[in-house]
Amino acid sequence: MTQPPSGAQTPPQLRISDDDRIARLQLLRSPRVGPATYRRLMAAHGTAAEALKALPDLARSKGVKSYQLCSEHMAQREYFTGKKIGADLIFEHEAGYPRLLAEISDAPPFLWVLGQHEQLTRPCVAVVGARNASSLGTRMAHRLAAGLAEAGLIVVSGLARGIDAAAHAASLPHGTIGVHAGGLDVIYPAENSELAKSILQKGARISEQPIGFHPTARFFPKRNRLISGLCQAVVIVEAAAAAAAAAAAAAAAKSGTFITARQALEQGREVLAVPGHPMDARAAGCNVLIRDGACLVRSVDDILQAIYPATQQPPPLSPMAAQKRPKQSRRPCPFHMAKHSPIKPDARIWFKLCTNKF
Amino acid sequence: MTQPPSGAQTPPQLRISDDDRIARLQLLRSPRVGPATYRRLMAAHGTAAEALKALPDLARSKGVKSYQLCSEHMAQREYFTGKKIGADLIFEHEAGYPRLLAEISDAPPFLWVLGQHEQLTRPCVAVVGARNASSLGTRMAHRLAAGLAEAGLIVVSGLARGIDAAAHAASLPHGTIGVHAGGLDVIYPAENSELAKSILQKGARISEQPIGFHPTARFFPKRNRLISGLCQAVVIVEAAAAAAAAAAAAAAAKSGTFITARQALEQGREVLAVPGHPMDARAAGCNVLIRDGACLVRSVDDILQAIYPATQQPPPLSPMAAQKRPKQSRRPCPFHMAKHSPIKPDARIWFKLCTNKF
Repeated sequence: MTQPPSGAQTPPQLRISDDDRIARLQLLRSPRVGPATYRRLMAAHGTAAEALKALPDLARSKGVKSYQLCSEHMAQREYFTGKKIGADLIFEHEAGYPRLLAEISDAPPFLWVLGQHEQLTRPCVAVVGARNASSLGTRMAHRLAAGLAEAGLIVVSGLARGIDAAAHAASLPHGTIGVHAGGLDVIYPAENSELAKSILQKGARISEQPIGFHPTARFFPKRNRLISGLCQAVVIVEAAAAAAAAAAAAAAAKSGTFITARQALEQGREVLAVPGHPMDARAAGCNVLIRDGACLVRSVDDILQAIYPATQQPPPLSPMAAQKRPKQSRRPCPFHMAKHSPIKPDARIWFKLCTNKF
Repeated sequence: MTQPPSGAQTPPQLRISDDDRIARLQLLRSPRVGPATYRRLMAAHGTAAEALKALPDLARSKGVKSYQLCSEHMAQREYFTGKKIGADLIFEHEAGYPRLLAEISDAPPFLWVLGQHEQLTRPCVAVVGARNASSLGTRMAHRLAAGLAEAGLIVVSGLARGIDAAAHAASLPHGTIGVHAGGLDVIYPAENSELAKSILQKGARISEQPIGFHPTARFFPKRNRLISGLCQAVVIVEAAAAAAAAAAAAAAAKSGTFITARQALEQGREVLAVPGHPMDARAAGCNVLIRDGACLVRSVDDILQAIYPATQQPPPLSPMAAQKRPKQSRRPCPFHMAKHSPIKPDARIWFKLCTNKF
């Protein structure tokens, strides 16, 4: 389902030729060029082709000896391999590039997208959590994701084992977005291959990495910024923790889920977490987040109330959910409303200031 | 262990004769005389004997026909029965009346006290919760109460089944205070008779009701105001909830534990709660409290950090605990510090405003 047309809301439609796409790919895939450098070079030189010409001299002037651009051949290979598997390259400022993602400071200049592109323009909520989730956690993720999907929201997750897989599976009928840490054709873990395939029918899978790229550990936090960047809110169901309760919070602080939570806060997203008993090590991360200001989630209503203050309209329902509008008590969460009062930013700053200390 | 003598902190020592004690008892036990009326009458007439003389005329002037004072005989019987079981009647402004309790608006004019009176003058924390507690909840109550007792705090609870009993049992070696809803000789449930007896060795049991009085439902909230009134903080471990998850919050709102939480907030006490998984109905009440601003408790350290901001000294340790000072990380809870910043009162007011709506 696409958003209703609205002149004011439609992003400016950039049209890019195939050659320009390949040149842009070549620019971003060149060493030492990240989103920020890419944007600086594009702003300074106007086109990717011009930026590519200037780049080696620029690198030398910065003291980088024997700088090698990504070859045109490599860029062409990535572009046509992507096309071959049915993926599309969507650049920022092009129609279809997710509006919320474009707002983050290190938004990827383009995304590889497989599946139903239009889902990227719909309101999204992330449901993420531990890979080694408990059965209670998996059930909770399933329940929340199904509820969010029925309420017209697109559930975004990381295609991982545990909570992520449960969130995708529950929201499949309404469309869900899977964000890869590697290439769009690299499914990890392999047991999620069928799930990844099913997502494409009503949802989409996206990545900023080259087709065929196998990610290492440091690419997961990069991926996680996309998950939170795409979404209005990030719901954390279980956050990994060590077996020993005393070390749990410290271990949780290093977990991918915690990194996602911190990035979400830095991006100005709502962070919500499902509590658990303190004697359950898998709840340690979520409990720390809630203690430090994250909104406590008991049901899908808590999430909807956090995202849509009483005065604001919920999103249009997905076609399937439109047939049965879910019963939602629209009573605002008082703590959440306090969040939206002038006092809340301070509490959130507290949380931010203290994230290094868990 | 008694408080170190300090001229500035010692309350003014009122000396009351036995006759005056009986007259005061007779005044407060008379119909339509609660703590507020008692204080008004004492302020207007100087002594209980004078107030008793004036009371029937006052009642008639307010339109109460055939007003009957509590008989002197009844008051004498209560007084001497109390003495017989070894209890003492401690009036406000007498040495030994708990300082924090005296600060609440409807503080009882006197307390019946059995056991070690001096415990009433030490810093207290309440640990309360559901009667039908889970084994996880009971273990948590045990762990928290033992930790608080070792840190030099007196654990106060309601002598009920479940969380209350676990809290008392864990803090027995250091002294604990049990607050009766009925008379000091009425132990409910009977299975806690042994526990009630053990409490007296190092702790105390208190009540504002006559010896022999069997309480009905409406006396439990009255008792709960004493529990929170005595304490700096109220820790809720599990709050009763209905079997159906949807109705859980509503049911929890009516539970005694919830009433205690609301009273504690009204008295300006810190409210803390132990979270649980949303699919566990017994966690519903605590999760609502945390969502609405109560401090989340994972361990005894969270409670200590909430009670003693980084700048404040912890209480003197109990004699037994003094031998091994517990390891406490004194890192302040960031959310709690936000509570103590100028922004927090608003959030607390939110909670108060919304307590009717759960």
